[in-house]
Amino acid sequence: MSSPFRVALAGLGTVGGGTVRLLREQAELIEKRVGRRVDLVAASALEKPPGLDLSGVRWFADAVTMAAEAEADLVIELIGGAHGIALKVCETALTAGKHVVTANKAMLAYHGADLAALAESKGVFLGFEASVAGGIPVIKVLREGLAANRITEVHGILNGTCNYILSRMRQDKMEFSAALDEAQGLGYAEADPATDIDGIDAAHKVAILASVAFGCPVRFAPANVEGIRHVSAMDIKYAELLGYRIKLLGIARRSGTVLEQRVHPALVPVDAPIASVEGVFNAVAVVGDFVDKVMLVGRGAGAAPTASAVVADVIDVAAGRASFAFGVPVALLDAIEPAPLSVRAGAYYLRLMVRDHVGVLAAVAQALSGAGVSIAKVFQDERSPGEKVPVVLITHDTEESSMQAALKTIGAHPALLEPPRMIRIEQF
Amino acid sequence: MSSPFRVALAGLGTVGGGTVRLLREQAELIEKRVGRRVDLVAASALEKPPGLDLSGVRWFADAVTMAAEAEADLVIELIGGAHGIALKVCETALTAGKHVVTANKAMLAYHGADLAALAESKGVFLGFEASVAGGIPVIKVLREGLAANRITEVHGILNGTCNYILSRMRQDKMEFSAALDEAQGLGYAEADPATDIDGIDAAHKVAILASVAFGCPVRFAPANVEGIRHVSAMDIKYAELLGYRIKLLGIARRSGTVLEQRVHPALVPVDAPIASVEGVFNAVAVVGDFVDKVMLVGRGAGAAPTASAVVADVIDVAAGRASFAFGVPVALLDAIEPAPLSVRAGAYYLRLMVRDHVGVLAAVAQALSGAGVSIAKVFQDERSPGEKVPVVLITHDTEESSMQAALKTIGAHPALLEPPRMIRIEQF
Repeated sequence: MSSPFRVALAGLGTVGGGTVRLLREQAELIEKRVGRRVDLVAASALEKPPGLDLSGVRWFADAVTMAAEAEADLVIELIGGAHGIALKVCETALTAGKHVVTANKAMLAYHGADLAALAESKGVFLGFEASVAGGIPVIKVLREGLAANRITEVHGILNGTCNYILSRMRQDKMEFSAALDEAQGLGYAEADPATDIDGIDAAHKVAILASVAFGCPVRFAPANVEGIRHVSAMDIKYAELLGYRIKLLGIARRSGTVLEQRVHPALVPVDAPIASVEGVFNAVAVVGDFVDKVMLVGRGAGAAPTASAVVADVIDVAAGRASFAFGVPVALLDAIEPAPLSVRAGAYYLRLMVRDHVGVLAAVAQALSGAGVSIAKVFQDERSPGEKVPVVLITHDTEESSMQAALKTIGAHPALLEPPRMIRIEQF
Repeated sequence: MSSPFRVALAGLGTVGGGTVRLLREQAELIEKRVGRRVDLVAASALEKPPGLDLSGVRWFADAVTMAAEAEADLVIELIGGAHGIALKVCETALTAGKHVVTANKAMLAYHGADLAALAESKGVFLGFEASVAGGIPVIKVLREGLAANRITEVHGILNGTCNYILSRMRQDKMEFSAALDEAQGLGYAEADPATDIDGIDAAHKVAILASVAFGCPVRFAPANVEGIRHVSAMDIKYAELLGYRIKLLGIARRSGTVLEQRVHPALVPVDAPIASVEGVFNAVAVVGDFVDKVMLVGRGAGAAPTASAVVADVIDVAAGRASFAFGVPVALLDAIEPAPLSVRAGAYYLRLMVRDHVGVLAAVAQALSGAGVSIAKVFQDERSPGEKVPVVLITHDTEESSMQAALKTIGAHPALLEPPRMIRIEQF
């Protein structure tokens, strides 16, 4: 057997701890699969977590120093953060000719192409399976398993926190804030949940998926992101009555020369396979020209599933299975800018809170038809006269720009008691 | 750029034709991913299919001669059949130091370990992604994507013909024979459908999955196979009333030193994700100790999806991504024999056709309790006295051997108008 493959690990939080445990517990299995031992030889973190077995591991107070100086073949970066120390660790390791494996989606969303170029110039691998959808091996599936396909679309449920909140809102008719509280209590949401619930985390992941799927440099598109703060129990209820569930979706679609890349809540038909993905689970669907549609479902976060993805990348490198980070050499990546949300086409769900619904309905119908949007369905609960009534509309397929124009007119109507609530409908 | 990677193709049926088309249409994409051209240089089949562009391809009347003599780096075998010419082609190619990619599950179920050993001794790759679940890259996911896990279970819907028939029976309340006729008319079932509907095809695939998942030599277990001929529209209806759907499942589960490996129809809870996989789609769920459960869904057959899997293997080899065929070297495969069906434990669905249901129910209850099986639910339709009445039972979890003992006693009861119908229940 050849000499051990040496790994250094920066960051010992939840995923870092899980990775140490996995490397220890599965050492024998990994050696069988790789043909040589994979040893953790160095580690660095703000502090040594109690109870973690780090015997025989060289400790570095500074992760960047470790990336430069540790006698390791590969550095695992699990510090997090888009531009700070994590980036420095990865750049330093790659420059020193070490492979890098990271779970850092924010960093990749901003610096993915540059890091890939650096890795390529040094002849080392940049692995990031753990950055998207936790334990689900979707990067490998896109980059290798479906390599014979021209990918036309990737979409999915990419944030477990949001999916948990939306699932709980539906199951127990909870409002958003109560479900968020519960998620925080269970450790599914962070104390500052903004990155998750405002869709930023999912948008980082969509940017990475789009790059691997379409062979373009990673481009984070913050303008095309909408979170779930405004989704109400009422919308979830009406969606269900109309045969839909509400999910926070990340969508990347290549249509001709245009790249749609967006994150927003969406109504999906209740019998679509993705609708039944509940709680903290993630799902990613890929559409390719030969394979048609493939969907993957699994745990999108957590120490053990994410460690599974981290170590899968380590095993690939140790076993000599090289890949271009984004499936093709960086020089061959095709720059396609994400288009604005206005290129989107499809159906829309619209909820209006009104007092006199008859009068408003006429005005709304006129505003929609004036913008070229036709109504497929109208739904309203019976209420006493004078009471606030929700009027719910589903449109036929139309352009986002027409819908936005109609919304502007509708929003200005004096009988509206709240701004109109619009949610896109995705038919998968 | 380096010299082209040269491929020879044996067998030009549906999948072979799709593979030729894919290699032509995606030539540019493949070159970008591999870093060199992948050229089809030789082909062999019983006859040249009209309309297939084989310009520049050397034609061999005999596939074995081609495997030996073609100046190719890799031979794709798409002839089919477990022991005949296909096996000879693969052995010849491997012996000549050529990589082999095959979609031949029957051959692998019988000769997988021997072929892998031969490939290893020659330092070449044996790829068989296309042999299980068509376009779904489940072999790669098991072998590489989840390589950091000890896999405890793989199960799934592995035969699209059966899933189509069962879906149609449920949707349109058709009987088995009518649904089979329809499937044959649509080309989803062959003229001689036995291999599919008797579960043999799924059992070949389970044997391959078990080998990759658990690192054991492929062992086809024909004794543990039951098809769908006996599933009736009535059972599907009662299953639905009780909250279940009937699916033909392939299951491989490692429990301690025992390997459960079986194929049979099963009731699955209607809200289990696998229950919503309908029509010709396949699904495979993998359970690993770190990743928990990952499920993959996609097209399990057809020219284009299967070609996608064939060419993914070709791309891996051409790009220099080597793997052991079954995830570990053949010498390290652990021989675990599939255990007999009697080790199975779980709940059971039982349907009895009787005239006097009150009297029979007492006898049945006694037979079950005598064998240590307890009843969870009883269900019966109202009928006129003297008419044939179905009595449906669901048991609590029990051992297969107890259930079989009870079935023997029950089957001998004179009031039974038909043999009792038993279907296993799987809770996922």
